[in-house]
Order: sequence, then structure tokens, then C-alpha cells
Amino acid sequence: MPGPGEFELIREYFSSRFQTEGQPNSGAQGYANQSVVLGIGDDCALLNPPTGKILATSVDTLVADVHFPASADPFRIASRALRVNLSDLAGMNAEPLWFTLALTLPESNPDWLEPFARGLAETAHAYGITLIGGDTTKGPLSITIQVTGACDVPLRRDGASAGDHIFVSNTLGAGAAALPIVLGDIEGSPEQQQQTEAAYYFPEPQFAVARAIGKYASAALDISDGLLGDLGHICEASGLGAELDLERLPIAPLAQSVKGERALQTALTGGDDYQLCFTVPEQHLRALGALQLPITAIGRMNTESGVRCRLHGVDWQPSGTSFQHF
Amino acid sequence: MPGPGEFELIREYFSSRFQTEGQPNSGAQGYANQSVVLGIGDDCALLNPPTGKILATSVDTLVADVHFPASADPFRIASRALRVNLSDLAGMNAEPLWFTLALTLPESNPDWLEPFARGLAETAHAYGITLIGGDTTKGPLSITIQVTGACDVPLRRDGASAGDHIFVSNTLGAGAAALPIVLGDIEGSPEQQQQTEAAYYFPEPQFAVARAIGKYASAALDISDGLLGDLGHICEASGLGAELDLERLPIAPLAQSVKGERALQTALTGGDDYQLCFTVPEQHLRALGALQLPITAIGRMNTESGVRCRLHGVDWQPSGTSFQHF
Repeated sequence: MPGPGEFELIREYFSSRFQTEGQPNSGAQGYANQSVVLGIGDDCALLNPPTGKILATSVDTLVADVHFPASADPFRIASRALRVNLSDLAGMNAEPLWFTLALTLPESNPDWLEPFARGLAETAHAYGITLIGGDTTKGPLSITIQVTGACDVPLRRDGASAGDHIFVSNTLGAGAAALPIVLGDIEGSPEQQQQTEAAYYFPEPQFAVARAIGKYASAALDISDGLLGDLGHICEASGLGAELDLERLPIAPLAQSVKGERALQTALTGGDDYQLCFTVPEQHLRALGALQLPITAIGRMNTESGVRCRLHGVDWQPSGTSFQHF
Repeated sequence: MPGPGEFELIREYFSSRFQTEGQPNSGAQGYANQSVVLGIGDDCALLNPPTGKILATSVDTLVADVHFPASADPFRIASRALRVNLSDLAGMNAEPLWFTLALTLPESNPDWLEPFARGLAETAHAYGITLIGGDTTKGPLSITIQVTGACDVPLRRDGASAGDHIFVSNTLGAGAAALPIVLGDIEGSPEQQQQTEAAYYFPEPQFAVARAIGKYASAALDISDGLLGDLGHICEASGLGAELDLERLPIAPLAQSVKGERALQTALTGGDDYQLCFTVPEQHLRALGALQLPITAIGRMNTESGVRCRLHGVDWQPSGTSFQHF
């Protein structure tokens, strides 16, 4: 039985769902809805951006068998696709407003589309972001999502100063450690399977941490390509260097159990963390500490060049830096 | 010799070009530049949308060997990719501001990237739109572009009234007639080759017509999937029907020379026109006529359902309606 045609597909799986279930009222500022003048269905979506805010926008493509296994559960694929995009908004301290979906599919298959659309709607609802438009095309499975948010004071990567303390949120290495289990190369214990699920398909964009550090942090980004590479971006953009004390690095339990003695390397360069890395001037440390956030100080910015790693006071050389596609 | 890595690729082909050559000052309102707070290179681009305007945004994916031949000249592919997206802004009467590029490539090949980036920059410059961010991933060749513009009074598809006159801009059928020549199925005379180039790789987004009709039109859209299907969208959104006098249809010379007696059918359902279809209330006809625009009245809206075609007063039944992917 052939699946629905292109326009029916959009109507059945996306327009209807996002007009009824998906419309969020839970956005932190509550203005996601009011700002949408016209959603899915015309040449363009029409938007009335919130007054006095700066818009932040980011786009990411997930390609089947590059960014996720083509055979993975579509609900989980949708969750991952939207969450990794939302993480870029969190990295900028922007509150979610709208997103678009450009979906390339080999076939119009209701058994795939229904759970995918449900995963997308549930994730969107959870983070108060609304689907305003998109495109469906025929071709190799690929998902491009562009998210837009609004911020008062964006956290850029070029604002760090020498002496600033470097922090990361939560733990690192779980995303990369999850990969061999996701791909079926390693079986994984029930506990590892559960941690893999959470890290790979349900990464938590760090909006709460971003909001809390907003007035203290001098620079920030989300760690998607591995801490070393991404901290390198802060260094480069700020014209500085950094020194890390590796014994302070919060390594994810999954990285430790899967990677063993390679856990540290995984946490440094593995990628897919979607945690925040940010810098804080000395004078804000006390105020930040009082907030009792799930963050760890791991080093300091300096006037040198590049990122230097020390483990218990001894220089430590990682192998490789961060993930690149080419 | 391996091509550049992901970050070098973005820097070399996109950031640098769009910071130097590509920055447009030619946007009709001149605010494209001023509104970009931060372009390529952070988690998100930061934007300061023009005050008092409504934002219009649209996304389109072009998949290799579905929307263009994979072996086509990359300069032309870039031109087509950006122009078909700009056409959606024109269909809404929005002035171009920014765009993002999500580029999926099988390999990092400078021989492909250089002309592609040049085509993108030249097209962007011509239409006063600026690249603010994107994503490059490895996978089957595919290009997703999201354009954003600003409008005072958007031309939606749901504003037509019964009795309104239906117009199209320029001529129809060239895009669809070009396809067999683009694909190499037909050789084509030198003149046909030239018309094919223009129609397929350099379609002209109808901004000038959109601006001119802005205060007279009751509804509008850009014709991308074929006149019958797209006019059907105006009918559906406006809760109306339409009657077309097919002998008035402005058929492109290329459609006539390539398609012969199938030219009319091609102009009605072929797709890839990127012309405007719009409706105008009776009382504005005289004022509109005085503007001497390249537009043709082809029928009227009515209170029935669906689009009815008449050729010299006799009912005419097209075969099929419009292009759909599934």
C-alpha cells in the first residue's frame, strides 16, 4: 500500500500534530506561540519576533548511518535530531522559539513517519519550541533542523579573558562511549544500554545551566565535537590559550565502564556530549558556587596558544583532537 | 590529495567569502547587513531583526539526482538552490535578509566547492541576502537552504475573494520543458540550450513583481509545483474555486518548442516555474494595469470548489495535477 502523498504527509504527520498537541505553552518566556503569525502551509512561515531580544539561529543535519543508524527507532531519531539542535540554543543562552524540519526520505512510510512525528512533537513540547515549516523530499534519509531562539545576553565563544576559570556541565564522554553500543558493535549490560539510550537519543540541552550562568560566564559553547576541539574554539575566538587539570574532568560512568583506561581520552575528544563548556572570571566564582549547579571547574584560560593538558601536574598528550567530517 | 577538513572548509569557502565579497549592501531596504550581530562561527548566528517588520522564513532541500543532476556544474547548482528558495520569499512579498546552508557532501573536493561557493556568493550578492551559518556533513549530495526575509504586508495564499482576477507573472512551462535537456534525454538546439540554462539554473525570483502588486493583490504564491496544483492551494486556503481561460495562458517559448502540443499541459502542471500566481480584486485592475508589469490575467476566483479549465469556452481536462515527491 503506498504511503501518503507529499502534501497529505505534511498535513497528517506535521501540520495537524503541531497545531493540536505540539503547540507549546511551556516556553520559559511564554512567547513562542504568540510570535508565530502563520505556521506550516504557505510559501513562508510568518513570525513576529519578540521585541528587544536578539534572535539566535542554528542548523544541523543528521544523515542516516553517519549520525544515527538508519534502522534506529524513528521516535528516538526525532528526539536526537531536535535535541542536538536545541543544544546549540542552550550554548548561546537563547530560549527556544521555532524550528523548521527539512526531511529527506527514501519512501513515504506511515510506520516510520508516525513515531518520528510523535518523537518530534513530544520533544518540541518538552522544550517549548514550535514547528513552523519545512520541506519533505525523496532521497537518502537525512534530517535537517533549524532552530531559532531569543536571548537577552547571548553567551558567545569570543568573550573569555586570561585567568578565567573553565567549567563543564555534568559529565563528559557518555555520547562517544554510547556509539559502539548504538551501532551494535558491543552488546552492553542492561545498565550500559540504559545509559546509552539516555546519552545518545535523549541528550539534555543544558538550558537550566545556561540561564543560571548567564550573568557570570564570559564565554560558552555546547560541546558537540569533543571538549578539546570545542575549548579550542573558545581559545581561538578569544585569542587565548587554556590549561586543563585532567584529574578534575568529570567523566561519565558509561565512558568509564565501556572505555576503561581510554575513558579520559573519550571524555576529551569523543564528541556528542551536548554539555556546556564555559569560562567564568575569578570575581564571580563565589556567586556561581552558591548556585550549586551540576558543573565542574577543570582549568583556566591563559595568554598562551592552544589547549595544554596536565594530569596530576604532569603534561599529558591526547591522541587526536575532535571529530571532523572530512 | 585530501580536501580541506570540515572547519577549514567552512572557513575557506564560506566564512571568508561571505565576510569579504559576499556581504550585500544591495538589499532593497539596505538593512541586511546591519541586522547580523554575529555570522558564521559560533553555536548560533545572532540577529537583530528589523523593527516593525514581520519575518518570513522558508526552507527547501535539493537532493542530487532528484532536483538536479549530481554531475551538473556546481556554480549552477548553487545558483538554482538559492534562487528557488528566494522565490518563496518573493511569493510572500518579503525582502531578503539572511540564509543558512546545510550542505551534505560525499567528499571534500576543492574542485567542486570553489565554484559552488562562488555561485552561492554571486547569487547572494545579486539579491542582497547574507549567509549567516550552516552545517557541513558527509553523506549523499544534498543542499538545504533556509531563507529569511522581512515584510510589511505579506502576501498570503488565504486572502482571495470570489470574483478576484487570477494573474501569473511572465511565462509558464520553461522549467519543466528544460528538464529533459538538463538530463541529457534531449539534445536541444543552441537556442533551447540557452533557454534551458536560464529557466533551470537561473530562475528569477519575482521580487520586482511582488513589490509592485503588494498593495493590490489579495493572495499570492510562487509556482513551484505547477500552476494547477499551486492555484489549488490558493483555492483551498481561501475556501474558493477558480476558473481558468487556458487560451490566455502565457506559455514559455521553450515549452512550445520542446513540448509541442503538450506545451499547454506542461505550463499547467509541469512545475519549476518560480513565477508568481496571484489574485486581484476587480477595483484594483485599472491601477495594476497602469504599472505595465509582465503579468497576464488568466481567470477568476469563484465560490465553487477546485480549479476548472476552459479552452475557448469548452471544458478542458488536464491529465494529472502537480508534482509531488511521494
